[in-house]
Amino acid sequence: MEQSVRVITLGVDDLARSRAFYTRGLGWTPLLDLDDVVFYQVGFGLVLALWPRRELAADSGAAIGGGRSFALGHNVDSRATVDDVIRQVIAAGGEVVKEPRDAPLFGGYQGYFADPDGHLWEVAYNPNLRVEGDGTLHFGTPS
Amino acid sequence: MEQSVRVITLGVDDLARSRAFYTRGLGWTPLLDLDDVVFYQVGFGLVLALWPRRELAADSGAAIGGGRSFALGHNVDSRATVDDVIRQVIAAGGEVVKEPRDAPLFGGYQGYFADPDGHLWEVAYNPNLRVEGDGTLHFGTPS
Repeated sequence: MEQSVRVITLGVDDLARSRAFYTRGLGWTPLLDLDDVVFYQVGFGLVLALWPRRELAADSGAAIGGGRSFALGHNVDSRATVDDVIRQVIAAGGEVVKEPRDAPLFGGYQGYFADPDGHLWEVAYNPNLRVEGDGTLHFGTPS
Repeated sequence: MEQSVRVITLGVDDLARSRAFYTRGLGWTPLLDLDDVVFYQVGFGLVLALWPRRELAADSGAAIGGGRSFALGHNVDSRATVDDVIRQVIAAGGEVVKEPRDAPLFGGYQGYFADPDGHLWEVAYNPNLRVEGDGTLHFGTPS
């Protein structure tokens, strides 16, 4: 199996609520906004989809519930931007799970928030992280 | 907030088991393999991290449980490759959640599997999907 993720599908309880959070609240532009699914481009060849849990369940044959078992990482280029994003999340009605603070783990600064369904996002400034021209991620040594 | 995901962190119960599934079972090459976390490059500027649930919980301050609330989409270029991936998943001890079959929803072919922690993957051939040179994803009209 090749190492490739093309779509991140978040199961949501109320698509209108989720669309409002990401599009209006966070200011995202949909790649495709349909009655029953919204797609946002979130990287090179990568989209995030909001899809009602019941439809993801019907499509996969698996029960799709709530609960947090993963996190999405959003990296920014300064501490101030971490603070800005968290302020925007608050204004959008998102839940701040961890107020921004130093992150000794990687020598940076981070906060966490949850979207209306509880999907967890880390917002991080990691001074040691860089993306090479070919897309390879590099982790430096924390100072 | 910019539309960008840099890291997908999957909470895992047993890192050795998850590492064995992805690295040995699926044949993936780690970008970075440490005692308590494994990173795989899964796209341009995108990594998937396997991290013990308790550590993700400690870092975020949120309870990290099991449960399925999302899916990762892996797109391939033929029906045969969907079958091949699902066969590899079976050989690796993964759970086939949905046997590959026609997907009228997008005019293609798909299967679903779960990794050792139940994290859900869709394996799909979508003849209408294409990635432009600038990384933009396009969805064509199902035939």
